[in-house]
Amino acid sequence: MSHDTDDNKVRYRRTQSVTRAEEITKKESKERKSQPDKPCHRPRDSLFSWSSGFDNFTGLVNWGFLLLTMGGFRLVLENFIKYGIRVDPVQWFVVLTGRNEGQGHPSLLLILYSIVPILICLMVEKGLASEVIMESAGMIVHVVNILVLVLIPMVVIHVKGQAFSLVGAMTVCFVYCILFLKMWSYVQVNLWCRNQYKHSRKRSGRRQSISIAQLQNEREHDQPGRQNGNGVATGAEKDKVPKLVHYPDNLHLKDLFYFLLAPTLCYELNFPRTSRIRKRFLIKRILEVVIGVHIVMGLFQQWMIPSVKNSLVPFSNMDLTKMTERLLKLAIPNHLMWLCFFYLTFHSFLNLMGELLHFSDRNFYSDWWNANNIDTFWRTWNMPVHKWCVRHLYIPVVEMGYSRISASVFVFFISAFFHEYLVSVPLKTFKIWAFMGMMAQIPLSFFSKFMEKQYGSRCGNIVVWASIILGQPLAIMMYYHDYVITHYNDVLV
Amino acid sequence: MSHDTDDNKVRYRRTQSVTRAEEITKKESKERKSQPDKPCHRPRDSLFSWSSGFDNFTGLVNWGFLLLTMGGFRLVLENFIKYGIRVDPVQWFVVLTGRNEGQGHPSLLLILYSIVPILICLMVEKGLASEVIMESAGMIVHVVNILVLVLIPMVVIHVKGQAFSLVGAMTVCFVYCILFLKMWSYVQVNLWCRNQYKHSRKRSGRRQSISIAQLQNEREHDQPGRQNGNGVATGAEKDKVPKLVHYPDNLHLKDLFYFLLAPTLCYELNFPRTSRIRKRFLIKRILEVVIGVHIVMGLFQQWMIPSVKNSLVPFSNMDLTKMTERLLKLAIPNHLMWLCFFYLTFHSFLNLMGELLHFSDRNFYSDWWNANNIDTFWRTWNMPVHKWCVRHLYIPVVEMGYSRISASVFVFFISAFFHEYLVSVPLKTFKIWAFMGMMAQIPLSFFSKFMEKQYGSRCGNIVVWASIILGQPLAIMMYYHDYVITHYNDVLV
Repeated sequence: MSHDTDDNKVRYRRTQSVTRAEEITKKESKERKSQPDKPCHRPRDSLFSWSSGFDNFTGLVNWGFLLLTMGGFRLVLENFIKYGIRVDPVQWFVVLTGRNEGQGHPSLLLILYSIVPILICLMVEKGLASEVIMESAGMIVHVVNILVLVLIPMVVIHVKGQAFSLVGAMTVCFVYCILFLKMWSYVQVNLWCRNQYKHSRKRSGRRQSISIAQLQNEREHDQPGRQNGNGVATGAEKDKVPKLVHYPDNLHLKDLFYFLLAPTLCYELNFPRTSRIRKRFLIKRILEVVIGVHIVMGLFQQWMIPSVKNSLVPFSNMDLTKMTERLLKLAIPNHLMWLCFFYLTFHSFLNLMGELLHFSDRNFYSDWWNANNIDTFWRTWNMPVHKWCVRHLYIPVVEMGYSRISASVFVFFISAFFHEYLVSVPLKTFKIWAFMGMMAQIPLSFFSKFMEKQYGSRCGNIVVWASIILGQPLAIMMYYHDYVITHYNDVLV
Repeated sequence: MSHDTDDNKVRYRRTQSVTRAEEITKKESKERKSQPDKPCHRPRDSLFSWSSGFDNFTGLVNWGFLLLTMGGFRLVLENFIKYGIRVDPVQWFVVLTGRNEGQGHPSLLLILYSIVPILICLMVEKGLASEVIMESAGMIVHVVNILVLVLIPMVVIHVKGQAFSLVGAMTVCFVYCILFLKMWSYVQVNLWCRNQYKHSRKRSGRRQSISIAQLQNEREHDQPGRQNGNGVATGAEKDKVPKLVHYPDNLHLKDLFYFLLAPTLCYELNFPRTSRIRKRFLIKRILEVVIGVHIVMGLFQQWMIPSVKNSLVPFSNMDLTKMTERLLKLAIPNHLMWLCFFYLTFHSFLNLMGELLHFSDRNFYSDWWNANNIDTFWRTWNMPVHKWCVRHLYIPVVEMGYSRISASVFVFFISAFFHEYLVSVPLKTFKIWAFMGMMAQIPLSFFSKFMEKQYGSRCGNIVVWASIILGQPLAIMMYYHDYVITHYNDVLV
């Protein structure tokens, strides 16, 4: 516990090299050290002075996270003191099952009705494959069918608005959106296959059939056991592995329903499969979904609803200081819920579906938390949609001869439309905040790239996080404000 | 913008080595890739699954600091909305100059009076050196003189309590504490020197005088220019460097006053010196002190006082939930002020004094923010006091034959006494919260060391930060509560 051991603990980079002058100082200090007054001082700079060259501030990361945890805990306490316990599981049950819907569960009926366009789609495909239906006529039916699919919830919810609960209407819109994307993919992939199928048949009947037989033969010999991290194929399993399916053998109901349930939006004829269902993995995911849904519901009732309600008056009066304060207060629970929702949906639920369906591509999200610009974030946070956009929108548009930038803007435009659709239709308020929010991503993308180039990747990452944390509550406030203004104007004096 | 480039961006460690099975998978996927349906899926695990081996979460550090900044900004806004602007520079002037003190500025008089014990101390030392005063008698006078020094503010403030302002009383106690430590050091160092001086004179008059002459001679040849980061000595300066001072040549008023003003508590005969005053450095430190004092005063009025007042009722009613909430709310401004105060005192002010006095040892603090246990924190945050404790308390106690642990406990005990002294005397409420707080550091130290060993240095560091952030506001609340209970009991219904 002498001074020297303490000094040694502070290992700071010496920017100056050891010079003769230093040696002299050493010699001198040796002489001073031998004095009877036990000297304990020596020439040194303070650590905060630039000349000390000290730069070890790793403890501050712990400091930051501790303050964050404490701040969060205090907010939770404050919330309980202010509002008491608002969590009410009975309410969740009512909301989830849509008990407060009109008689006959219109949401459920609407979701069940979606079987009709699916069957139309499959029948048209079968007709096209067997050349019973003309190519052009078939494509028109497909387009009309898919467009009608998207319009059904808009019209039904608009006309019979009172009969739908909010959660019910949102579920319907969500299901129809996914069906739209999946059916688009199904039709387009089948078109690609049909084109090649017809093309190869046209070229030469005999040569082709031989080469197909050859291919088939090779495949039988080479066919390996499928394997990956999910499950290792054994030698015995090798023989059981089904051969690759070829067009038009894929056109049957079982294949289509597998695709509709599978955790992907991109159709293909031979999805990579796992060899077995890992029971422990499955149980973990089920528990996550069950517990996670309760946590999100609880957070929503306890934290989100009071925060949103409290911010109504400042937003109405356009009081900028109070608006900012409310927005920042709302941002924390909203962001927390979004993180929970992200994990629940993209990790727990999609992995659960994948495990049940032996679907082995679990690339549902990439490392968006490290994204250094907005573009990277949009490319990584939602991989199923991103893959669909690239495969069925971006590449086809580029192949049609448009530039990459206009293709990107087009993708953003379609994406903005669906964001608006998913918010406006259930809320029955056709405002354009979600659409504007999505379109604002384009200038924001340029800004974040500029920040990344100018001030390094850390700065770009902070811009991305700020847009995630602040953008969403802003949009929520705008919708809630307009919703209340429209429906209960008398609340605001 | 194809899928593969996106996948490449996600560089995750593959825990499994490349096996034959993987090669087969590659071959298979090659065959699948050649299909007309443009397959875009391949077997992969999600990044959150352990089997993916992914561990790059660097973006989360940015996330944490962004949330922290936002939360802090929101608290500032909330504070302004709730309390308006409370900063009032006129009030600062009154508090700082002690205008609300009784007639005659008792604090100032008391500080000026400290010259008396200083002069007594110097005269006794001179008497001891010239052997006019007996060794034992001199030491008794020293001890009485130093003890009376500490007792003066206690008695005067207790008797004439109404005449002192809080800031005035605190300044007096602070100055007398520092004088106590400095004079203890002065007396002890002179005792060491005197012992050696007498010892060497006793051994042999002639041999010693020769060797001293030799030493003097050598010194004149070897004497190098002192240099360090603060100022580089040139060849011309070499000759100007004063020779080492030897006992009893140090016993004069100028030397003593230099020590009393110097930013250290440990006396030695030859302090390391800088060759020049760096003007830019000096101006920066002066600006920091001037601006920093205003920031701290502003924070105190605007944030601290309302927070402390608001936490009074919960603390009085012992409502645990509300107490915790108030404590956490108070912790943030208090911690921020403490950080400002630390920087102001230990970096700005002490460096300013050092620069003015050509004092070149600027080791006023070490990297306590990286401390992994409480012991390290106490050894690093306040280097002048730590050095004093080791040199004048810990080592002498160990040399007296006590164990290291009991020496440490003794140091903590003395330290606890002075903490209590600095708080209780100005507040005129003799409670033992500060004393208990300091003594609680001993079990806390064992706890933090246990956490460090059991869960790694990061955990130890978090324990240290938590004790800094939470311990202080707890002590403040306790004192404030007792202060109000004693003086204005009718405030609490």
